[in-house]
Order: sequence, then C-alpha cells, then structure tokens
Amino acid sequence: METKAEDRKVVFSVLVENAAGVLSHVSGLFSRRGYSIHSFSAGVTADERLTRMTIVCSGDEQILEQIEKQLSKLEDVLFVKKLDPAQSVFRELILIKVSADEKSRQNIISVADIFRAKIIDVTKESLICELTGATDKLDAFIDMLSDYQILEIARTGITGLSRGAADVQDAEKLLNRTYD
Amino acid sequence: METKAEDRKVVFSVLVENAAGVLSHVSGLFSRRGYSIHSFSAGVTADERLTRMTIVCSGDEQILEQIEKQLSKLEDVLFVKKLDPAQSVFRELILIKVSADEKSRQNIISVADIFRAKIIDVTKESLICELTGATDKLDAFIDMLSDYQILEIARTGITGLSRGAADVQDAEKLLNRTYD
Repeated sequence: METKAEDRKVVFSVLVENAAGVLSHVSGLFSRRGYSIHSFSAGVTADERLTRMTIVCSGDEQILEQIEKQLSKLEDVLFVKKLDPAQSVFRELILIKVSADEKSRQNIISVADIFRAKIIDVTKESLICELTGATDKLDAFIDMLSDYQILEIARTGITGLSRGAADVQDAEKLLNRTYD
Repeated sequence: METKAEDRKVVFSVLVENAAGVLSHVSGLFSRRGYSIHSFSAGVTADERLTRMTIVCSGDEQILEQIEKQLSKLEDVLFVKKLDPAQSVFRELILIKVSADEKSRQNIISVADIFRAKIIDVTKESLICELTGATDKLDAFIDMLSDYQILEIARTGITGLSRGAADVQDAEKLLNRTYD
C-alpha cells in the first residue's frame, strides 16, 4: 500500500478476549482489506481473560475511521481506543547483537552507555545490547551501531498507555458487555 | 486447548519477509490447527525487508515438531529457529498504570525502585511504571503492585536472541533463497 501525503500514523490500543484465534481475526481484518500494520504488540492485562493489543497503522482519515469501526465490530474485540500522542506514553524494547572483538568492544560499550542501554550478553566475538525507549531513540541507537557489524535485531513493536487515570476500562463490565 | 503433563513451552524465532499479510498467514496457521500462542512479538530487523517474530507456544513433542515444520513451509517465512533457554536471552517490556494518591505514591515508588522500574508518568491520581526483564521478574512486579489498584497494563510479549555469534543468518541469502 502506497503512503500518500494525507496519510497519518495512528496507534490503536485494543482490548480483546484472551481466546484462541483472536490474533488471527484481528490480523485477518487488516490483510483482507489491504490495511498495513507498522507495528503490533500484545500481552495479557491484570485480568488474565483480557489481552491488550497495540497496533500502529497508517492511512487517510477515511481508512483510519474504517479500521476503528471494523475492529470494534469483531466478536472478540471488547474495546478500541485511539492513543493521542500528546496524552500517551509509547515504548518499545530492542535487543541488538553486534559483532565485537577485543578492539571494538570498548567503543560499542561507550555508545551503549550514552543511550543507557544494558549489555546483557558478551562472548569473544559478540555483544547483545538491550534498550527501551521511544521509536526515534531506538532508531538513533541502531544508526550509531551501524558503524559496527549488526548481526541480529529483535524488537517487540510499540506498546503504550494513555496518561492519567481517565478512560480506564472495567474488565468485568467489558466481559459482561453491560454498556451502561 | 488443554495443557497436558508432557507439554512444554518453546520459543520460536522466525524471520519473515516484511510483506502485507504475513502476520495473518502466521497467526492463521496457529488458529486453524488449534495451536495456542502464549506470547507473540514482532519487529523489523537491520534489513528493513525482514521482520523477526518471536512466538512462544506449547504442546507435546509431536505438536511442536509440526508447528516448526508448518511455519517453515509458509511462503513468506524465511527461517525458523528454536531458541534454547540455556543459550538465549529473553526480555519483555511492561507498562503498568497504578492508582496513586499522595498517601500511596511513595510506597509504590519504593516498590518500583527495588525492581529498577522507571516512573514515566505521574498525575495526582495515578502513576505509570515501565519495567523490562524476564517474564518471572515482570510477574513478581505485578504481584507486588497488586496491593495497590492496578488500572491498566500494556505488555509487549517476549522477544529474544540466541547468545553468541553462531547461527546468524545472512539477510541477502535468505531473500534470494540460495540455500548453499
């Protein structure tokens, strides 16, 4: 799908029933209609019957409205919220394995220190750095490390929450679908 | 799907082509066959044409073998690796919003300090903590905070890499499928 001038990125926070097949239902909606997903992450909430998915996608106003509407209509989707960037926190986790010998190791560790990344594995020929932050911070870190040989990257995709206590959903009510 | 005594958990690290619909193809495989996914995360690699998915699932030996075989057969899946817990690092990121007033705020911050969690948002009635670690550490943190009122949780699912530089795949070779 081409990105057009009027396209913008939106982050949806989606509460779903923690049931088999829910990932397939949600991703199927996007793929059938040709909506592109930039980032996807999911994890159970405090109530183990509910999973929160964080989906970053882009499109023009009409497409974004359609996505929101169609997500809400899915059987196992209980609540859809658009996360306003000004009123939310977004974080992502990245693990980067870099080739590192005796000569380059200290330089790589210095770069990691600047970003407050943790070194979580060292062998004679490689290092693994762990970093958490907003996407632009992670991208800047990857850019700095690209002077060395990046061997492997694993990243989780973006997760996020709105700031403050407004708009918190009650799990019990959602599961009983008593929209009072 | 019931968990049986002979079931065990396995973490698959899966390199896929960064194409529309790939999430749907992978999740569809699990849902069609009734395989349950415990955790799922995904992010692009150093080569933007490739995405790494980390999938935690469980089953008996036969089912796990089938999952590995069927994943490998998918058109857009380029490489499947089982991550050996003894030879790998696993991390997950969690954001927890807790109800906090003037009285409880300092106690919650003390718990966060013990786990080296960061406070990334404060309002008069709530806090958001950010923590990265292995799943059991995150679960212990949630357990400690459950003495207070947990309002919202967002977690990314597990991501991981094998330790050391062995078994690193060459993106170019994978994309050209020249299995030499």
